[in-house]
Amino acid sequence: MDFFYAPPEQWLQNSSVEITGQEARHILKVLRYGEGDSIYVADGAGRIAACIITGTTKNTLTAEVKNLELKPESFPKKVLAAGLIKVRERFDFAVEKAVELGADEICIFVADHSQRKSFNIEKTAQHIISAFKQSGRFWLPELLVKKSLDEVLAHYRGFDIIMAHEKTETSSRPEKLLNSGLLLVGPEGGFSEREVLLAEQNGGQLVSLGNNRLRAETAVAALLAQYLFE
Amino acid sequence: MDFFYAPPEQWLQNSSVEITGQEARHILKVLRYGEGDSIYVADGAGRIAACIITGTTKNTLTAEVKNLELKPESFPKKVLAAGLIKVRERFDFAVEKAVELGADEICIFVADHSQRKSFNIEKTAQHIISAFKQSGRFWLPELLVKKSLDEVLAHYRGFDIIMAHEKTETSSRPEKLLNSGLLLVGPEGGFSEREVLLAEQNGGQLVSLGNNRLRAETAVAALLAQYLFE
Repeated sequence: MDFFYAPPEQWLQNSSVEITGQEARHILKVLRYGEGDSIYVADGAGRIAACIITGTTKNTLTAEVKNLELKPESFPKKVLAAGLIKVRERFDFAVEKAVELGADEICIFVADHSQRKSFNIEKTAQHIISAFKQSGRFWLPELLVKKSLDEVLAHYRGFDIIMAHEKTETSSRPEKLLNSGLLLVGPEGGFSEREVLLAEQNGGQLVSLGNNRLRAETAVAALLAQYLFE
Repeated sequence: MDFFYAPPEQWLQNSSVEITGQEARHILKVLRYGEGDSIYVADGAGRIAACIITGTTKNTLTAEVKNLELKPESFPKKVLAAGLIKVRERFDFAVEKAVELGADEICIFVADHSQRKSFNIEKTAQHIISAFKQSGRFWLPELLVKKSLDEVLAHYRGFDIIMAHEKTETSSRPEKLLNSGLLLVGPEGGFSEREVLLAEQNGGQLVSLGNNRLRAETAVAALLAQYLFE
């Protein structure tokens, strides 16, 4: 089932929802839905509703909730923290795959080897929403931005730290997460020695993803894929 | 270490290698290597050599082998057979990820839901070589093209068949491969009922990759990632 997105503040309890902006224009102008039509709407916070459109204006629509499905937030939480990737299409790809493969939060940070220092946060947030809708998830992954791995580790204190690092001697499947997990993937060129040491000092486990040299966005997908069945 | 590619027929036993065409022009014109410089050359069939360039013409170069590393072909073999994906960048991505994540052979077939029936085989073979060099593998994955899943199954008789299929009830990690494995991933829209039945009739195991709806190229990466540690 395809569904549309309206953040929690656009819902009137569990009885109706207002969809605005680009999403409403898409529904009304592109897909040509109108009053009386059925749609699914998700709020990105565990709620997906089967609705009937009851009113439209040029740029908004109101829909009455007919049937509601709620899903609790997943635990343990999986946070993907990725060093900012230089090549835009590979960066976008990493973010999209992180959403599809179940990251509960996506944290982008400027790693020592990151060749650019900033990115379009608004656009990336939009990509996350698109991938969220496409993949049929109930919870919209939050996007966080940090200036360094140091900041990331400070923010996620208490998490199990797993760092993808190709120069690790043993290559074996990472262990099951017992607590919430912070999954670290470097940018092009991987992590610096300083960052590897920092992760180790914080109790991080280094994980090598097989014998081949992986691109950054491939490592994102491959690492998250290890936790698909938990 | 970065390395260059010369297929087995361009080697004079284990003593020297000739590099021609685009690869030679890249080495000589773009990277400006010349006589006396050291390079690594792989033949895509288990051989990687440290070489010294001993002669150049406009479009070719000859290099003497100084040090040789040989690696046997991996067993059990992992074949990725993917239904032809319509969106070109997603198709290219699937192929690139398949190489990075260890597919020994890549078989592209026209699935029931494939929205296009042909692709540029030459270009895809080039993508495979690029990804092969980038990922530091010893064996170049072979590219095969088949007209249907039926043809694929006939070609890989005796292989363990694993089919990624989201409508499977249980979602659990696929079992270890005991024999060579045929990993099947559908195009946009997944496999048809006919194809699912066909795989089952041939002893195939259906595997659901978690709870989210995955794009075709994501399923390729996620499925291969399950076999990274074997």
